[in-house]
Amino acid sequence: MNKGVLYVFSAPSGCGKGTVLTEIRKRLPNLKYSVSATTRAPRDGEIDGTHYYFVSRERFDELVETGGMLEHATFCGNSYGTPKEKVFECLDNGIDVILEIETKGAMMVKESYPEAVMIFMLPPSIEELRSRLENRHSETEEVIAGRVHEAAREIAMAENYDYVFVNDDISEAVDTLYQIMTASKSLTKINQDLIKGVLAKC
Amino acid sequence: MNKGVLYVFSAPSGCGKGTVLTEIRKRLPNLKYSVSATTRAPRDGEIDGTHYYFVSRERFDELVETGGMLEHATFCGNSYGTPKEKVFECLDNGIDVILEIETKGAMMVKESYPEAVMIFMLPPSIEELRSRLENRHSETEEVIAGRVHEAAREIAMAENYDYVFVNDDISEAVDTLYQIMTASKSLTKINQDLIKGVLAKC
Repeated sequence: MNKGVLYVFSAPSGCGKGTVLTEIRKRLPNLKYSVSATTRAPRDGEIDGTHYYFVSRERFDELVETGGMLEHATFCGNSYGTPKEKVFECLDNGIDVILEIETKGAMMVKESYPEAVMIFMLPPSIEELRSRLENRHSETEEVIAGRVHEAAREIAMAENYDYVFVNDDISEAVDTLYQIMTASKSLTKINQDLIKGVLAKC
Repeated sequence: MNKGVLYVFSAPSGCGKGTVLTEIRKRLPNLKYSVSATTRAPRDGEIDGTHYYFVSRERFDELVETGGMLEHATFCGNSYGTPKEKVFECLDNGIDVILEIETKGAMMVKESYPEAVMIFMLPPSIEELRSRLENRHSETEEVIAGRVHEAAREIAMAENYDYVFVNDDISEAVDTLYQIMTASKSLTKINQDLIKGVLAKC
């Protein structure tokens, strides 16, 4: 059995990440979506264990200290992290896993698990991103300014990913992500054993 | 207009490279197939300017010395090379180009043009490759032994490519190559300008 592929997916806040991921999960029903742990408060409609594991600061820090997090980062004062055990259990059982995380956490995963397939979704432009955030009407001007600043910082990290693509049209973005995820199964970095296997039969 | 993508495609002799490429060109009619120059004698049915430019040793060496080759290599006593001008003209005009070359030449292209998308097709096993070569009935046992030895050397180079996949079933191999070629348009290494463009609008 082949090992599962670990996909790391990042996109600035307001880029349409949630919508694209909902669609991709319909197309790839066996894909396991890793649920992050976070110290931030739930937003309206967010369910514990589905969108995030909402945990206390104490519990979060305990997981970090005992090596139980694949990655963790603090963003706007809240901490986010990926509990390690569940992810590796899936990969070992041939199940593909997708992590939706921001760039700092993504870089930690890339470092500790280089076989991860790194995918970054870009907004068409920073101005477009600002409009989308404003249209949410859920945040103050100051918070939006902070998010736009953070988005620019994150986009500057995109060059450290394997793939980048723009979400201009949701349907096209989903097609592109699907193509990337399919083709990335042939990336050399996750097929070292395949090459060795062919040579072993010499 | 986006620049064309340069695909470098390698596979050991006897791996079904020709058949897979014929099919991929049907699916991607705008893909330009780079015609190599070679000093080797034409095989039955090979047409000058279509399969290769069959050139003299003198003409080949002149092209190398004047910097007119993107890559060149000698294999089984014959030299092969890619005339540079035509390839870059296509890329500049937004036309994708595929180079079918062996590993030494491929590494030269990767070095001089890092945006090239490097793809390696593997045989299911070395033993399967040997059978395929024997079934051609076109070469002596000694030549086949040499080709198998060369194939093992080439396969050991596969880890330097972006993608690897096995040609076990022609139709599946063509599908995989098509997916790779499509998705590789989102590889970060050929989208540096896209990232800069999004940031420039800040």
